[in-house]
Amino acid sequence: MSTPGTVIECKAAVAWEPGKPLKITTVKVHPPKDHEVRIKMLYAGVCHTDWSYLYHGGQQDWPFPLVLGHEGAGVVESVGPQVTKVSPGDQVIPLFLPECGTCAQCRSGKTNMCRNNWAQSQKGVMADGTSRVSCNQQQVYQFLGVSCLSQYTVVSDAAVARIRADAPLETVCLLGCGVSTGYGAALNAAKVQRGSTCAVFGLGAVGLAAVVGCRAAGASRIIAVDSNSQKTKKALALGATEFINPQEPHKKPVQDQLREMTSGGVDYALECTGDVSSMAQALESTVEAWGVCVVAGCTEPLRIHGDQLLMGRTIKGTYFGGWRGASDLPGLVDKYMKNKKDLSLETFITKRLRLEDVNTALQLLRSGDSPVRG
Amino acid sequence: MSTPGTVIECKAAVAWEPGKPLKITTVKVHPPKDHEVRIKMLYAGVCHTDWSYLYHGGQQDWPFPLVLGHEGAGVVESVGPQVTKVSPGDQVIPLFLPECGTCAQCRSGKTNMCRNNWAQSQKGVMADGTSRVSCNQQQVYQFLGVSCLSQYTVVSDAAVARIRADAPLETVCLLGCGVSTGYGAALNAAKVQRGSTCAVFGLGAVGLAAVVGCRAAGASRIIAVDSNSQKTKKALALGATEFINPQEPHKKPVQDQLREMTSGGVDYALECTGDVSSMAQALESTVEAWGVCVVAGCTEPLRIHGDQLLMGRTIKGTYFGGWRGASDLPGLVDKYMKNKKDLSLETFITKRLRLEDVNTALQLLRSGDSPVRG
Repeated sequence: MSTPGTVIECKAAVAWEPGKPLKITTVKVHPPKDHEVRIKMLYAGVCHTDWSYLYHGGQQDWPFPLVLGHEGAGVVESVGPQVTKVSPGDQVIPLFLPECGTCAQCRSGKTNMCRNNWAQSQKGVMADGTSRVSCNQQQVYQFLGVSCLSQYTVVSDAAVARIRADAPLETVCLLGCGVSTGYGAALNAAKVQRGSTCAVFGLGAVGLAAVVGCRAAGASRIIAVDSNSQKTKKALALGATEFINPQEPHKKPVQDQLREMTSGGVDYALECTGDVSSMAQALESTVEAWGVCVVAGCTEPLRIHGDQLLMGRTIKGTYFGGWRGASDLPGLVDKYMKNKKDLSLETFITKRLRLEDVNTALQLLRSGDSPVRG
Repeated sequence: MSTPGTVIECKAAVAWEPGKPLKITTVKVHPPKDHEVRIKMLYAGVCHTDWSYLYHGGQQDWPFPLVLGHEGAGVVESVGPQVTKVSPGDQVIPLFLPECGTCAQCRSGKTNMCRNNWAQSQKGVMADGTSRVSCNQQQVYQFLGVSCLSQYTVVSDAAVARIRADAPLETVCLLGCGVSTGYGAALNAAKVQRGSTCAVFGLGAVGLAAVVGCRAAGASRIIAVDSNSQKTKKALALGATEFINPQEPHKKPVQDQLREMTSGGVDYALECTGDVSSMAQALESTVEAWGVCVVAGCTEPLRIHGDQLLMGRTIKGTYFGGWRGASDLPGLVDKYMKNKKDLSLETFITKRLRLEDVNTALQLLRSGDSPVRG
């Protein structure tokens, strides 16, 4: 059956209301409109941000029902009018942070914070104010303008990175969020220098990818910090040189341990836990005078001490690791294809589950694993 | 009378206990020891940091009695053994932040945060653990290793900048702290770029100097922010293009005003009030994606919102504007001597008072003026 131009019925993991498990639901995915692309999604990861929207969404006025998922890969099924960037059959990674190439931010060359359609995608709709997904005549919102946890989805043509045809989507789908975010936090935001000392707080996918980024930048010491000592092996495999569990009894505060280990503090701290108390520790673990703390994810108020800044420290944030999705992801895929060990994507895969088991995936995520469905 | 090698009796403004006015006291200033320099102080400014130590010192376990003052200029009276950097008769600016040239920080070339003798100077003593000032056999501590509010003082030879013989100490004394701090916050910490938009919060000496720094960097808009509208004229004279009083009634929060005025936020915010609530506003007034907020002075906890960072903003601190005192102050003096309007030091002088009137100076400081004694 030829699908282009038709409404596609397929399965999606729908969040019907905040705080409740996702429900596998048959939805209608409508044809792409002007500058839109419909994608057959083949692989997706789940991310803590999905979990947060689901379980805290009710407090924040986020729209429901919606299809979550913002890290995935698939194949273009069809394109709407005026789409020139991709064609049916192209392998693509949807972008929760678009790159339109024309807004002031994109043109600045200084940032990846494209503002095209930002307000709408934060409300779960496309540029025209509606979503392309429905169920029984009810509009189903699209998370961050992508909604990867569906067999089909529609995205803006600014929100898609075309990648090479021979890339294994099963692994490169991870470049859609977590791995790119951590890797870029080290390379683009912290700009880790060769021979420097780094601490990485939190060893989820983002933190492990930050370890990989520090290694790629040539850091001489990469101290991984996590309250789960079972993460040690993987962190060391990916390039960490040491591991600290801050919750081990009879130990000093982790920032004091790090400062002692490094004669005053690390050059760079990559904060990848998303926990605000960890952020102050991360900042304080950096060396005064030039220490840089990069926050890879945080949406809450944090408290830091002015003295810490005054003595020459910097704290900064990054979204999607500073990568401009459409421009940069093809290069990251090339890098991976050239030498699979460079990004070690396979190491990030802890489980392969089917879409039907998405709630299991979210539970595993919360327990400390980061699964991928196939 | 030849003074070198002798104990000099002179007047100093002594803080005998926290929370009480300074008392003009006859003190003994002992000869300089190894690597120390005795200076005849001719001019000094008072700074909010002096006021803070005096009125909050009791809460912080800072030592008393002590001689305050950390911004001034004078002439070398004598030098101790092994001093090669200056000679008697040299015009100098004492450095509350030394530059030894040999510690890891100095050698790094990345910072002005010299660590030589830091711990001792924070305790009000010299490298050997004692001060060179006494009164009736009682040790009088030396504030930040300098103590400019005395007719004579002794400093480490790492804590002195030799400047040209023809520089008027009456004005260049301001380079010892406030003016350099604000000017450097714009040039060295924010690294303001030509054509950019800037906001400067707080128009004391540091903030006004930040305005001068933004102007020197070629900023296209410099929006000065102060709750005292009487600062408008001076701010505009020094290069500000606009002025906002955040306490004017019926106005939006200052960060919202700034974001509206600049289509999303300023490129750089220079926070020079020292007030933590202003810091969050300053950060929020910067444009997301690449906004940089520089904190020129703060020793308290501050609360910022993680979202602000995540969207690409940076907050960083600077101490003494990033200048390496011994290396950089001579150049700043040259700059001023070449074109007095470049730094406009005269504009920063609001009152000239004698040492005896130092408490009046501190009161004027608190009321919003920044006096200099002669």
